[in-house]
Amino acid sequence: MLPDTLRWNDKTKQLEILDQRRLPREVSYLRCSTVEDVARAIETMAVRGAPAIGIAAAYGVVLTNPMTHDALKESLSRLARTRPTAVNLFWALNRMEKVAEGTKEALLGERLLTEARQIHFEDIEINRRIGINGAKLLPDTSIVITHCNAGALATGGYGTALGIIRAAKEQGKNIKVYVDETRPVLQGARLTAWELFQDGVDVTLICDSMAPFVMKKEKIHGVIVGADRVARNGDVANKIGTYGLAVAAKYHGVPFIVAAPVSTIDPACLEGDKIPIEIRKAEEIRKLPGGMEVPEEIPVWNPAFDVTPKELVTAIVTERGVLYPPFEEAIARLFA
Amino acid sequence: MLPDTLRWNDKTKQLEILDQRRLPREVSYLRCSTVEDVARAIETMAVRGAPAIGIAAAYGVVLTNPMTHDALKESLSRLARTRPTAVNLFWALNRMEKVAEGTKEALLGERLLTEARQIHFEDIEINRRIGINGAKLLPDTSIVITHCNAGALATGGYGTALGIIRAAKEQGKNIKVYVDETRPVLQGARLTAWELFQDGVDVTLICDSMAPFVMKKEKIHGVIVGADRVARNGDVANKIGTYGLAVAAKYHGVPFIVAAPVSTIDPACLEGDKIPIEIRKAEEIRKLPGGMEVPEEIPVWNPAFDVTPKELVTAIVTERGVLYPPFEEAIARLFA
Repeated sequence: MLPDTLRWNDKTKQLEILDQRRLPREVSYLRCSTVEDVARAIETMAVRGAPAIGIAAAYGVVLTNPMTHDALKESLSRLARTRPTAVNLFWALNRMEKVAEGTKEALLGERLLTEARQIHFEDIEINRRIGINGAKLLPDTSIVITHCNAGALATGGYGTALGIIRAAKEQGKNIKVYVDETRPVLQGARLTAWELFQDGVDVTLICDSMAPFVMKKEKIHGVIVGADRVARNGDVANKIGTYGLAVAAKYHGVPFIVAAPVSTIDPACLEGDKIPIEIRKAEEIRKLPGGMEVPEEIPVWNPAFDVTPKELVTAIVTERGVLYPPFEEAIARLFA
Repeated sequence: MLPDTLRWNDKTKQLEILDQRRLPREVSYLRCSTVEDVARAIETMAVRGAPAIGIAAAYGVVLTNPMTHDALKESLSRLARTRPTAVNLFWALNRMEKVAEGTKEALLGERLLTEARQIHFEDIEINRRIGINGAKLLPDTSIVITHCNAGALATGGYGTALGIIRAAKEQGKNIKVYVDETRPVLQGARLTAWELFQDGVDVTLICDSMAPFVMKKEKIHGVIVGADRVARNGDVANKIGTYGLAVAAKYHGVPFIVAAPVSTIDPACLEGDKIPIEIRKAEEIRKLPGGMEVPEEIPVWNPAFDVTPKELVTAIVTERGVLYPPFEEAIARLFA
């Protein structure tokens, strides 16, 4: 059994966040009592994954203290500054803000908690629907490649990309998964391989640079990834490395499948180049196994995400069905 | 100043091998007194890089004790079993074997040492010529990407791929280099970034999965890599990750340049699929920064090399000139 990614503790009024930086070595929870605690948990990637960040931020809003409309504004603004790329964060904060509008201060705490819970539980349900919709794209015996972690650990539970793998398996399909380790934060090696292995999925861990060679040597039925933000034209921002995988998938004729809840689609964003790409600390790349470090003087570039243009995307799987090119039209219909 | 990759100590009759597993933290030498010492240094990648492996093996033969024709056979066979992919190893052992043939036992030690030294010093000269030949392919202001370490540390000195960068810089060209960290052994992060930085080259370290995104965002003038074995048709075996880089280079219209001494070309090998690919221990991938490990139960695939088909290669730079497609003909002319 996988531990919960996030859980609200009704007794202590704390948001308990599974500290993913310590996985797979240790299952431990950060107990967040303040908005700042949650903001820092998001910034330091104790919780990560676009949907999970949105849920954490929603609960974070509930921790506003004192619970006034003025303080709420500050909470929303603090939480919005944590990470720039995933749109689910802003989407969730928006939902919370709307609930707060026109609610009396005395009722704010209760109403906001209800909304955060709603966002959380909806997400699990959405993932299950993404799973069912996406599993149809996989033959009964499939070999797939995934990158980063778009699993239960990245969401309220079940997962988006890994939700598709889970649903296919539940339907009795025979699925083998190559998991990219996903440098520099190693979400693939630490989280996805562990998460799928615990569920009895046939996994093999590889380094990111091995994926194209896997595609050359074996028949791969799909590259399946999550998304941090999908622009209105279908361009997809996701964990750094996704773009290279998509290029390799195109070259090998492998379907490139993006699993994303509708909340990840940002109709206000015209195209991928408009998506802000977070550049993280060099330190994430400098720290090497065996306690070694790349000397400080050597410059490092550490973009946390990249953008895959719509031409490289075969399908976007949402809870409301599978979108196919031309994505601009499919997305317009979704928001019509 | 870079430390020597390898040096023969005439007083102690030892081969001193720079222990590259400890770089960049520590510059220290393994003192090899026996054939077995050298074989282990190659297997454990204390010394690595196709040309450097060949040179180490040549000196290794000199350490045969007692120095008899029978013992020599065993030495050659032991050293040939160290690593399967790079052909320079077998090429160097062949040269040593030919010198031994018809040499009286009393003279073997001296003749073999002379030949090993010859292989070593020839290699440096060859690299300088590769550098001059390859530098012509780079515009006066260039941004390039390199993978793994095909530098002074991978050769007798100066380097093949990095030799081209060095030569271009010596000619006054303005070269910026993105260095792939090169998981799992991190030759890029530990060796190439350090080696180039020490020489005052403008380097930026990235994770392997970032290279395609760099190609998308910036005009890149070349991907420059070394080779472990080039088949007769021009297919290139090199460090795992090279193939994916080549696919991305093709997609972005970036020249894909292989720097390789003629000794890396194996005319007896018809095509890339015939090149044996070494599969190394899972442990190399399991060990993560911060002392973390991927659990033992999770399967890992760790190919040390991949094969890039000739269609993806723009040019092969040798000491005898630059080869262009059709490579089969260019290589045939070289060996005619």
